[in-house]
Amino acid sequence: MEQQYSSALLERAVDEFSKLPGIGRKTAMRLVLHVLRMETGSVDRFCDALTTLSHEVKYCKVCHNISDTEVCQICSNTQRDASMVCVVENIQDVMAIEATMQYKGLYHVLGGVISPMDGIGPGDLEIESLVDRVSGGGVKEVILALSSTMEGDTTNFYIYRKLVRYNDVKLTVLARGLSINDELQYTDELTLGRSIVGRVPFTGK
Amino acid sequence: MEQQYSSALLERAVDEFSKLPGIGRKTAMRLVLHVLRMETGSVDRFCDALTTLSHEVKYCKVCHNISDTEVCQICSNTQRDASMVCVVENIQDVMAIEATMQYKGLYHVLGGVISPMDGIGPGDLEIESLVDRVSGGGVKEVILALSSTMEGDTTNFYIYRKLVRYNDVKLTVLARGLSINDELQYTDELTLGRSIVGRVPFTGK
Repeated sequence: MEQQYSSALLERAVDEFSKLPGIGRKTAMRLVLHVLRMETGSVDRFCDALTTLSHEVKYCKVCHNISDTEVCQICSNTQRDASMVCVVENIQDVMAIEATMQYKGLYHVLGGVISPMDGIGPGDLEIESLVDRVSGGGVKEVILALSSTMEGDTTNFYIYRKLVRYNDVKLTVLARGLSINDELQYTDELTLGRSIVGRVPFTGK
Repeated sequence: MEQQYSSALLERAVDEFSKLPGIGRKTAMRLVLHVLRMETGSVDRFCDALTTLSHEVKYCKVCHNISDTEVCQICSNTQRDASMVCVVENIQDVMAIEATMQYKGLYHVLGGVISPMDGIGPGDLEIESLVDRVSGGGVKEVILALSSTMEGDTTNFYIYRKLVRYNDVKLTVLARGLSINDELQYTDELTLGRSIVGRVPFTGK
């Protein structure tokens, strides 16, 4: 949709906003008109937050999670169980697992999954550094918490092949099955099938 | 929802994004993660577009539409009919009417409508400058194209009172009635009632 606004400055701001994911030209226009009504100082603060993030962002040198310090708060927290490493795709996954408050180990952020279609090979991911962490000793369990997709499964298998020679390191994956509160009749066949095959003893809990 | 991210820079960027209208913390997070993946140069261009707009935005001194020049492209276009002035609330309304390609006159952007509830009085709007434009001569018709709300009607009436003494200036309002493609049974009562009372001769067009 070609549109010509009465101001080139306006046009440029709308163009830039509509480059963001999920933001079309109408939403971009609405946001830009909001920016126009904002005080100049607020706009400057907004932009400063983004440029500072973009220029100064750091990633933890151990787990590759986003961090303001060399080693992130999770990796440097001595209260956490350093013998468990949970392998995830990205920093949102770390947040999602942290939000459950059920995990007290450490993480390893791969930065994606192996996806030949998107030109992402093992070398583009933090897999070597994971192997280094494990070979360094002290890790007793590696939890593979990747997406349940073909790419996730491929990556799981690749990591399995790299880590299988460390006999004293247990490799686990997240449990698959019905979601909590799922109704049986609305659950997809694959998930339901897997949860029947992978049924576990009823403990009464 | 309180969330603590592993990076204060990230937290600040999410905070700033979620101040924009219609953007909650989840969307803000998604946008910030996109910003993280963007090249630094692209982030700088995005921010430059916003800060430049915020610092250097100008409004046409005749019609108060947003403009890069002292007098906007519409007001300075000699092909347009300077004897007609269409009074609108904001610059989006100018764009909406321009998009119809049915109007060849000029505009006057009020900057809002009279709304005592929001503390907006006539003095906060570009009403005096409208009266000045009309008293300056050359204007034959003023089209009141404000929203069909109580505030819009109040503003219409206020402008009417200010302009009624210019006997040679015709005051008109936008036609109200059924939308094109509206089905009768789903049209609200007020609109339907008004379109019956305000029925017009059938011309066969």
